[in-house]
Amino acid sequence: MTDAESTEAAVLDAIEARRERVNDAIDEDLPLAEPERLYEASRYLLEAGGKRLRPTVTLLAAEALADVDPLSADYREFPALDGTTVDVMAAAVSIEVIQSFTLIHDDIMDEDDLRRGVPAVHREYDTETAILAGDTLYSKAFEIMLRTEAEPTRSLDAMRTLAETCTKICEGQAYDVAFEDSDDVAVEEYLQMVRLKTAVLYGAAASVPALVVGADQNVVDALYEYGISVGQAFQIQDDVLDLTVPSEQLGKQRGSDLVEGKQTIITLHARAQGVDVDDLVTADSPEAVTEEDIDEAVAVLEEAGSIDYARDLAEDLVEEGKDHLQVLPENEARETLEHIADYLIERGY
Amino acid sequence: MTDAESTEAAVLDAIEARRERVNDAIDEDLPLAEPERLYEASRYLLEAGGKRLRPTVTLLAAEALADVDPLSADYREFPALDGTTVDVMAAAVSIEVIQSFTLIHDDIMDEDDLRRGVPAVHREYDTETAILAGDTLYSKAFEIMLRTEAEPTRSLDAMRTLAETCTKICEGQAYDVAFEDSDDVAVEEYLQMVRLKTAVLYGAAASVPALVVGADQNVVDALYEYGISVGQAFQIQDDVLDLTVPSEQLGKQRGSDLVEGKQTIITLHARAQGVDVDDLVTADSPEAVTEEDIDEAVAVLEEAGSIDYARDLAEDLVEEGKDHLQVLPENEARETLEHIADYLIERGY
Repeated sequence: MTDAESTEAAVLDAIEARRERVNDAIDEDLPLAEPERLYEASRYLLEAGGKRLRPTVTLLAAEALADVDPLSADYREFPALDGTTVDVMAAAVSIEVIQSFTLIHDDIMDEDDLRRGVPAVHREYDTETAILAGDTLYSKAFEIMLRTEAEPTRSLDAMRTLAETCTKICEGQAYDVAFEDSDDVAVEEYLQMVRLKTAVLYGAAASVPALVVGADQNVVDALYEYGISVGQAFQIQDDVLDLTVPSEQLGKQRGSDLVEGKQTIITLHARAQGVDVDDLVTADSPEAVTEEDIDEAVAVLEEAGSIDYARDLAEDLVEEGKDHLQVLPENEARETLEHIADYLIERGY
Repeated sequence: MTDAESTEAAVLDAIEARRERVNDAIDEDLPLAEPERLYEASRYLLEAGGKRLRPTVTLLAAEALADVDPLSADYREFPALDGTTVDVMAAAVSIEVIQSFTLIHDDIMDEDDLRRGVPAVHREYDTETAILAGDTLYSKAFEIMLRTEAEPTRSLDAMRTLAETCTKICEGQAYDVAFEDSDDVAVEEYLQMVRLKTAVLYGAAASVPALVVGADQNVVDALYEYGISVGQAFQIQDDVLDLTVPSEQLGKQRGSDLVEGKQTIITLHARAQGVDVDDLVTADSPEAVTEEDIDEAVAVLEEAGSIDYARDLAEDLVEEGKDHLQVLPENEARETLEHIADYLIERGY
């Protein structure tokens, strides 16, 4: 195996080893209740799958801090640093529930029809039900986060992180929508949008377990910054992959961001280099574009240094993210968190 | 003045005396931030007005418990029962922000174009912005509720009440939507829907201040039940007024619930008495119906005892609500809370 392959294997193993416990916990913490149709719609996307990457980060951060063997502890009665036990799984579920809420509302806003290979909630049900399902998950996430049994001021800090994270995600989504109609977005503005829309939830996933087990504030802050860095790297890598991975592997037309006129870190950089990004691809739908059109556009972007710029930026962010993990004891869970950072930019799709 | 007039005057005075302080607090706790369009949309309905009835209930409950002269205390440094000070205004603002979020999303779901005399947020802006504005208010309400500086376990209780209240409101809205397509809703089911959709937020408005100032659990519970009772009475009275108040005073066509086939406690009762409610009014739009049509329908409902049934039920609920206030010290604020209960069913529109 290459290094990249062994990193990927380690990360996928870590996710796989925790997935069933996370899924069981979701069923426990968000059971099908009355009115049934509302709860079915609320659980629909969660049941459709998803990698459970964020809850895995939460559980790994707790394991690293408690310095226990991975998978050895009961996540519901997890050893906090003060000798009490806390329910760190509740924190993991809460974060995943928030992720699911944002996907449901985003799909309505973006008029996306598919998600995780199944119809979006507003297509499987209807827009009214999808709005309400998202709203239900929103408050459920707060209810679930209240069940960690962390020391009360730490529990309040976790609630504050969750609330502020949700506000930032909304702000990020608003910037993303606004950027679609703007042709002078600066790279810094784009990175700030990514930070808000995508990265803060990784920040919460990594730092909330530190709050719940009672780690020092500098550890909480470092784990938050780990999440921010890898979350930003993850989004930038998505932008790179859209141009560089063959369509069949990507599961959609390569270069669809270009065709749809979506702003990415790559187009923003190219524009700043004087590239006429709007004319890179003349086709106006993913169906109408040819592989040759995309090849030519990618060549222009390579020439401008824009793809390398994005790759370098993602790599720098991953290194920064890993540096923040130095606050953790050296153990297997910490190593897996490092692998996750690497994996986010080494993954092929 | 009649009793009803003096009750109304006392309630409107109490609201009026606190409105500016509530409005100033909303500006402080939910300032216009970046991205500006998102925060403008989020604040739009809050700026358009509203009686501020729920925050007034919150402030009055705190005043009654602390046994201070109404309006004498600084709501931001309010005397808690353990000698510390708490920000009870933050709790009042949080409740009002939740109310505003639910109105924005409800208007999208119900396709309503107007609210408080201005275009609904999804009409003034667009649906995407309205979904996002509601989502922003949602998390902001939790952020604001975290600022009460109540004793940590009490603060957590307030957060739990807020989260559970939001979940219940979603459930109530889902039942309301489901009932539109059903012709065999039981009176008990309707009352449960009203409890969830409307009354629990009054329950939170009345009980959260008790949590924040540190009152005993039986006081918290009694104030919650006060809110539930008056909230249900409020909704039932709305159903009565729709049939009994002249259109010009109502601000919309009298009997519009009947025309639109909306389930109310009155039609549910009539249906149970064997009245063919679906054929009471043949016109299928508020524009097509005549006052005579409505008069005839009302006569049938009077004959079936359905309007009296609703009136009696609302009156019983108000008496129950007032009974719960006996846990409070006898003072002017408690008296005003009693007046609010009476006012909700004595109001003419």
